[in-house]
Amino acid sequence: MVEAVQAINMIEMGKKARQASYKLASLSTARKNYALLAIADALEARTDEILAANQLDLKAAEENGVDPIWIRDRIALEKRMAGIITDVRKVAELSDPVGEAFDQSELENGLKIFKRRVPLGVLGTIYESRPNVTVDIATLALKTGNAVILRGGSDVLNSNLALVKILKDALEESRLPADAVQYIESTDRKYVGEMLKMHDYIDMIIPRGGSKLHDFCRENSTIPVIIGGMGVCHMYVDESADLDAALPVLHNAKTQRPAVCNSIETLLVNQAIADDFLPRAIDHLREADVVFQAEPRALKILEGKDGISPATDDDFYQEWYALKLNVKVVDDLDEAIDHIREHSTQHSEGILTQNMENAERFLNEVDSSAVFLNASTRFNDGSALGLGAEVAISTQKLHARGPMALQELTTYKWIIVGDNTIRE
Amino acid sequence: MVEAVQAINMIEMGKKARQASYKLASLSTARKNYALLAIADALEARTDEILAANQLDLKAAEENGVDPIWIRDRIALEKRMAGIITDVRKVAELSDPVGEAFDQSELENGLKIFKRRVPLGVLGTIYESRPNVTVDIATLALKTGNAVILRGGSDVLNSNLALVKILKDALEESRLPADAVQYIESTDRKYVGEMLKMHDYIDMIIPRGGSKLHDFCRENSTIPVIIGGMGVCHMYVDESADLDAALPVLHNAKTQRPAVCNSIETLLVNQAIADDFLPRAIDHLREADVVFQAEPRALKILEGKDGISPATDDDFYQEWYALKLNVKVVDDLDEAIDHIREHSTQHSEGILTQNMENAERFLNEVDSSAVFLNASTRFNDGSALGLGAEVAISTQKLHARGPMALQELTTYKWIIVGDNTIRE
Repeated sequence: MVEAVQAINMIEMGKKARQASYKLASLSTARKNYALLAIADALEARTDEILAANQLDLKAAEENGVDPIWIRDRIALEKRMAGIITDVRKVAELSDPVGEAFDQSELENGLKIFKRRVPLGVLGTIYESRPNVTVDIATLALKTGNAVILRGGSDVLNSNLALVKILKDALEESRLPADAVQYIESTDRKYVGEMLKMHDYIDMIIPRGGSKLHDFCRENSTIPVIIGGMGVCHMYVDESADLDAALPVLHNAKTQRPAVCNSIETLLVNQAIADDFLPRAIDHLREADVVFQAEPRALKILEGKDGISPATDDDFYQEWYALKLNVKVVDDLDEAIDHIREHSTQHSEGILTQNMENAERFLNEVDSSAVFLNASTRFNDGSALGLGAEVAISTQKLHARGPMALQELTTYKWIIVGDNTIRE
Repeated sequence: MVEAVQAINMIEMGKKARQASYKLASLSTARKNYALLAIADALEARTDEILAANQLDLKAAEENGVDPIWIRDRIALEKRMAGIITDVRKVAELSDPVGEAFDQSELENGLKIFKRRVPLGVLGTIYESRPNVTVDIATLALKTGNAVILRGGSDVLNSNLALVKILKDALEESRLPADAVQYIESTDRKYVGEMLKMHDYIDMIIPRGGSKLHDFCRENSTIPVIIGGMGVCHMYVDESADLDAALPVLHNAKTQRPAVCNSIETLLVNQAIADDFLPRAIDHLREADVVFQAEPRALKILEGKDGISPATDDDFYQEWYALKLNVKVVDDLDEAIDHIREHSTQHSEGILTQNMENAERFLNEVDSSAVFLNASTRFNDGSALGLGAEVAISTQKLHARGPMALQELTTYKWIIVGDNTIRE
């Protein structure tokens, strides 16, 4: 199905996206929702077409000896189509942040001032596998009046092209510009490099993938990049924690979905309770087959137990994406905070404590996108925090921090209304 | 006074700034204000010291044959000291955005969620001339709990070093970390290059200078950069404008302070009123010695008038910083908007009209940091819009757009409080 692709004119794509973005910016919420529902209907009506394309990607993955678990999680679409279509209809139901007026004021000279929420313009997204991301990002962009240039992974190219074709057809049928969704139909990396320099045509780059992709974007982009999704997350069990209640929270934070960014990598335990709590915690987590890397003090306490290895310094910087947990005994809250400052990716960190002074210090002094008191770090995502959607979890500090949903795909403009007013 | 500088260890500076930022983040507003007032007092008490250093810079500038107007505006401090000290006391009076809680909610599972406004951490500022910027940025950073690494211009190095010494002394006297304000004591550009890659230690780069400095930062920084301060600004006079009232607005927007970014470069006039209005507008602006570059249709109307030259295509992309104005006749609002989209730096654009439908279209469809209806573009700055301060006027779309004051030097963190709550 994928044919030899001609050289792609990225600037041309950028110009078309910019033009489309002008049209999208002025659309009513009703027009955008109409298009979203048309997209959902089209995905439903043309599911066979999508699955036929997906078969090509599945076959290629099998022939290349890709791990069946990976194929099932990252490539196969059949069991996901219903969910994808439902999600599009949900996006139509979310409230539209565009047009909101805020920070109104009137100055002494009579000037009326307010800010109006407006789309960012054009989004550039670079992602790997999971063709559902194509539909996710395109529909969230459409809802917020943004055009989007997509660049997906080579292993799902056929699936992505089928999805994009349907998205474009539905846009046209809804009399919206098909250029609102464009896809880079080549997996040649030079186009990613070109895209990252197109600051005249793209307003924000959203990388969805591992740390190498993020580093590449950060090093090479002249467009603002949303850095995120990498989580070396910590849970600190304070002296005063309710230790019985702590066990299920740790279990949840580590094992409920270990391959995602908001699961924990490191357990820090206050020395005053370590002898009592650490063996219990390890036994509880062993039931879920977790293995442990323990630093010397923890190792001594856990001596003779199953599934324990000595931790290296490097282990504390790793994101495991697996049923693995670093364990460390700390003297006090200060040492816990210092350890987190050194090793965290500023994604999600939690404290379990009954001491509200320690809680407040932890919540203040740990500088992460989300800090948790007596709750699992697994809640740091858009759906768990009630945003209804998510394009990324930002671990940088500018523009948006933590889960990014619709509002985070917008900016604002200042509107100043006078009566032929001049500055004295 | 400036001695040979040893090699600077930028990473060391970054680490010290990060450590200082942790202390600043937890300070009460009262502690920060106390330090600000101590800074103001110290600047007052040690004015002689500052002016002695400034003399060295003034002498060097004279010896190098620098334009006396430039020296007066960009280097000389004597007449500015009182204003600088007053401004520091004003910063102490501004309200502190840090600590504000917003977007509170409680989920069905009992989780309490809110965002807390927190400092960004460490700011990096690269600026040219005007040593008052040193005090401006350092005090606005301090007020918002941010540490700052400063890199000023070589022509005011002595003045800057004297100011920084006083700032650091006042911080220590107030028992705050002197590392909260650090200055790169070398004008070797390699340190700017190093600084721009220090994303582990610096959270935001604020360049203050021309487009070359901004381009250099955009191309080389792995830290988010605030692009701004470049203004190719437009005023469009619509068919229905109150033409008598339009004259003083144009006059203000072009001549009140032509060397700043929010003054206009281009006047667009609707063809229906061009024969009548254009000669009157030109006569009115000629009284302030404005000269004009006119495209062919405008040129024809203005034939024989003094101070008119034909415009080149390139003229419409220039920021004049001078009493120069491009003039163009457009068919209608659509052509005006298209022209602006092509040529604007997305800083400030205005429409003069009595037609509210056209006004609304212009305010919606022109994608600039501030859009003006029947008002001078000169109002696009922090003090004119009532913010009380300004670190930059952003023309990019992420994080902050338009005038950036205290709140724009902060970010937020999500705080999630549970009762040992787990995700199902």
